[in-house]
Amino acid sequence: MFRSHTCGELRLSDVGNVISLSGWVARIRLMGSMAFVDLRDRYGITQLSFHEGINSDMLVKASDLGREFVIQVTGIVAERTSKNSQIATGDIEIVVQSLMVLNRSKTPPFIIENDTDGGDDIRMQYRYLDLRRGIVRGNLELRHKLAQKIRNYLSNAQFLEVETPVLIKSTPEGARDFVVPSRLNPGHWYALPQSPQTFKQLLMVSGFDKYFQIVKCFRDEDLRADRQPEFTQIDCEMSFVEREDILQTFEGLVSHLFSEIKGIHFDVFPRMTYAEAMSNYGCDKPDIRFDMRFVALKSPGEDIDVVGGKGFAVFDSAESVIGICAKGAGNYSRKQLDTLTEFVKRPQIGANGLVWCRIEADGSAKSSVDKFYDSDALMQWERLFRADAGDLILLMAGELNKTRKQLNELRLYMGSELGLRDPFNYKPLWVIDFPLLEADSENNCWHAMHHPFTSPLPEDLSLMESFPGDVRANAYDMVINGVEVGGGSIRIFERDLQSRMFDLLGFSKEDAQSQFGFLMNAFEYGAPPHGGIALGFDRLCSLFGGSESIRDYIAFPKNNNGRDVMIDAPSPIDETQRKELGLS
Amino acid sequence: MFRSHTCGELRLSDVGNVISLSGWVARIRLMGSMAFVDLRDRYGITQLSFHEGINSDMLVKASDLGREFVIQVTGIVAERTSKNSQIATGDIEIVVQSLMVLNRSKTPPFIIENDTDGGDDIRMQYRYLDLRRGIVRGNLELRHKLAQKIRNYLSNAQFLEVETPVLIKSTPEGARDFVVPSRLNPGHWYALPQSPQTFKQLLMVSGFDKYFQIVKCFRDEDLRADRQPEFTQIDCEMSFVEREDILQTFEGLVSHLFSEIKGIHFDVFPRMTYAEAMSNYGCDKPDIRFDMRFVALKSPGEDIDVVGGKGFAVFDSAESVIGICAKGAGNYSRKQLDTLTEFVKRPQIGANGLVWCRIEADGSAKSSVDKFYDSDALMQWERLFRADAGDLILLMAGELNKTRKQLNELRLYMGSELGLRDPFNYKPLWVIDFPLLEADSENNCWHAMHHPFTSPLPEDLSLMESFPGDVRANAYDMVINGVEVGGGSIRIFERDLQSRMFDLLGFSKEDAQSQFGFLMNAFEYGAPPHGGIALGFDRLCSLFGGSESIRDYIAFPKNNNGRDVMIDAPSPIDETQRKELGLS
Repeated sequence: MFRSHTCGELRLSDVGNVISLSGWVARIRLMGSMAFVDLRDRYGITQLSFHEGINSDMLVKASDLGREFVIQVTGIVAERTSKNSQIATGDIEIVVQSLMVLNRSKTPPFIIENDTDGGDDIRMQYRYLDLRRGIVRGNLELRHKLAQKIRNYLSNAQFLEVETPVLIKSTPEGARDFVVPSRLNPGHWYALPQSPQTFKQLLMVSGFDKYFQIVKCFRDEDLRADRQPEFTQIDCEMSFVEREDILQTFEGLVSHLFSEIKGIHFDVFPRMTYAEAMSNYGCDKPDIRFDMRFVALKSPGEDIDVVGGKGFAVFDSAESVIGICAKGAGNYSRKQLDTLTEFVKRPQIGANGLVWCRIEADGSAKSSVDKFYDSDALMQWERLFRADAGDLILLMAGELNKTRKQLNELRLYMGSELGLRDPFNYKPLWVIDFPLLEADSENNCWHAMHHPFTSPLPEDLSLMESFPGDVRANAYDMVINGVEVGGGSIRIFERDLQSRMFDLLGFSKEDAQSQFGFLMNAFEYGAPPHGGIALGFDRLCSLFGGSESIRDYIAFPKNNNGRDVMIDAPSPIDETQRKELGLS
Repeated sequence: MFRSHTCGELRLSDVGNVISLSGWVARIRLMGSMAFVDLRDRYGITQLSFHEGINSDMLVKASDLGREFVIQVTGIVAERTSKNSQIATGDIEIVVQSLMVLNRSKTPPFIIENDTDGGDDIRMQYRYLDLRRGIVRGNLELRHKLAQKIRNYLSNAQFLEVETPVLIKSTPEGARDFVVPSRLNPGHWYALPQSPQTFKQLLMVSGFDKYFQIVKCFRDEDLRADRQPEFTQIDCEMSFVEREDILQTFEGLVSHLFSEIKGIHFDVFPRMTYAEAMSNYGCDKPDIRFDMRFVALKSPGEDIDVVGGKGFAVFDSAESVIGICAKGAGNYSRKQLDTLTEFVKRPQIGANGLVWCRIEADGSAKSSVDKFYDSDALMQWERLFRADAGDLILLMAGELNKTRKQLNELRLYMGSELGLRDPFNYKPLWVIDFPLLEADSENNCWHAMHHPFTSPLPEDLSLMESFPGDVRANAYDMVINGVEVGGGSIRIFERDLQSRMFDLLGFSKEDAQSQFGFLMNAFEYGAPPHGGIALGFDRLCSLFGGSESIRDYIAFPKNNNGRDVMIDAPSPIDETQRKELGLS
């Protein structure tokens, strides 16, 4: 037996007992006639003590220890003279009677404490040491906790966990598939699932009624920061439901998690249409921790123009002029305002410039376009923006959709600048009524905005062939703090409608049949109305942890090139392997 | 809202209430002036009733329904005149007030009831309909239940669930890897994990202390009946443990499952060494639901020979003569005995013949080799086998290991014949002290019997280089009813020993470093003693279900060619895809 207790367990009530512990040497303090060693395991830290008069042979052994050595000790629990209230075991120490080194350690390449000196690269290469840091392990403990609570919640709500296959069929729809050559079927390939979408729909056809799975999914995309080729989804589907049922069920799940893990209680999640989100926030996943909504001074849709005809060519020629009011930012210096202009002019954002207007203490306005707009004009802006003394109005102009996107970036930037984006202030909402289709002007065709199984809103069905771009989907996204936590839809469950959808997306009958024939056939044998959702589990974990990086919540993440630098994968394979697969 | 209740929910106490249900039409009985429809969903069956005098327009609608139509009804709960005690809702029926067909169904290709007329192939092709059968859904409900109970048990025992990566590195050790070309790293490949072995060991180095995961694993093996290219493992690892800790922990888990799900309570699981298992049962996963142990009449190891020198050349020239005593089979007819002989002569078993000896009612013996063995000799056999009147002794002869294998097959066959293998009579045990290595005489080298990370028994360490074949591993298998439910070992955690192991297995230093360098490096930074186990989850489910086929417990299994015939995977991929992957 390696231990009678863990390093987080002993208390004053254990004083006098002979116990044994195993763990890692976290710190050593040698002080001549005595020494103290902090012994660490997953559960905590316990102080070991060595005194010349009491256990002098052990004192000699202690002085040979190094950081991260793995040791086993037996000793007596004693009350500490100087207690440490910072740790749960801080009232006691172990007077060591025997000590065995179970394994030695070289000096680690970085300090194994929350405040480490290790950079990203070295920590990824030695991920097993990085994971030894309390903060990183804490992230994965949070992930563990969330996973158990999610499964128990859904299981209690009569959802059945069903494992769907990982080796499936490649379909060109959506992102790129990872593919796997089949040795037993030469020239044929499996694909790894981008999501279990069609399988969960088949389970509904099978009458499973409620399905869930916390499941790995795969997308061979060009990687951006914080996107992983393999990621984990909380995948769910329900039968005989309308949108309302789904929203309530998963609002219930996420509220439960916040309540259990964070002690935060939500009423209902607000709902916002896609159109509202775009017009008020320029974005389909608005961060509503702060208001700062868009106000249009000129907009093609809203039939307003309070900036034209004053001789300012930029606004005159622009399709739209929209802005935000940054409360309390009226004291921004010239230099700070210049920084904002530089921010929006960065190539990633691509605006031509920024117009500002600040409201002085006396209510008068001062603007970068004073030359064109007199104080009456500026007062009108002030009213439209409901700006008060000390506020800063920021305006951008141009083509509507582009300008919304750019202003969204500026809004988020200002939100951060003004400290309005506290990661632990959670503001969830539902975005609903997404467009069903996205125009691909390059190829002159339509793409499914979510996927081809998403049902149109019943009231828009008649527009499908005449005005496909106007059809709204019966789809919804859960958004928290500007992050899309998950999304889903009520699905098509009738073969004819599914067929119309494939037609609209430009599938030939043959392609639709060869790729999704099994699903369309299934729809002919009594498919129930159904719908579902998939929540990004990595993202949910990082949100609960208050971090922007999902990588911190994945035990063995890949880097931006899709590489695992610790195990050095991917890597070349043997010629024999290639031959067996018929690939050489 | 599609329903106020499910089809398994309504009782006498609901009589008089207006309710709505949705589900599938399971049965229709049209009887002129009235009709009854059984409406089915996951939760049960509810009878809908239609009467000319009460709801005659509904009666017309009911007569247009077909099997497996999906319908929604509203109606009043009424007490049935002829109750059905077979189903939970048998006391009531619904007098239908409105009926809507949500989706129609073609006639299914096979009958969707437990007793179906569908063959394997058609049911696999229409798996979504097969899954609609109560018996198949029941299997997956059992799987769901087991998964939740396992996770909750381990979670309560402080195991942390950690997801390990699916896209990893190919290593030629063990079975064949499935591989995945990396588009972002041309010429490089990922492999799908055969198990998360090295990752869970790294988690121990990281101090995670206790890890578990219910996880998909992949092996590109030539498929045999009931072997799947992707399968699911309950994967676990613990630090600071000896074998005893692991056996108790997982005996605890499995006992908990039996107690919770089957109401069966186990004391401790018996333990048997590999050597005992081979000598008593000729097999490392003995079925101990029945005794019928091997008895040697001639054996090189046991220094016994009671059959030699009597002129029977087969026994004289054989290395070993071993047998079993089939209790109560002494009444086997000549024809039955011939069938047994044919059984052992089948090429899959490959024996040359079978010697029988039956004990008559008066205690005298009659044997197929009476010519050579007189009644004294036969009485000696009788004593050695502890055979009684009415028993049947069956003997096989030949090279020891081969004969043990053959006799094992015969023993299992006789067990089945005599009804001693009730699938619901569960007899678990641990098999321990496996050999560390297996000789590969063809290539004149050693293979790891489990895997190269298995630790030798400490007392056998000194034999590693001198008598590698004699070294026992600190490994263990959990066996239930002749099925290997899982296996594991105490791992090597010291770099030097791991290095000796790789030497023994014929790895060059370079190969060992390039394939497992990350693990050996990790061992230099304070690796704790650790060990673990992996239980086959598919197999565990089938065992609990009392079935021999794991396929029945997998929602979407593949056939013996590794194909999913429902979605038609694997399949050819686009030329574009091949090009992007640098494969054309």
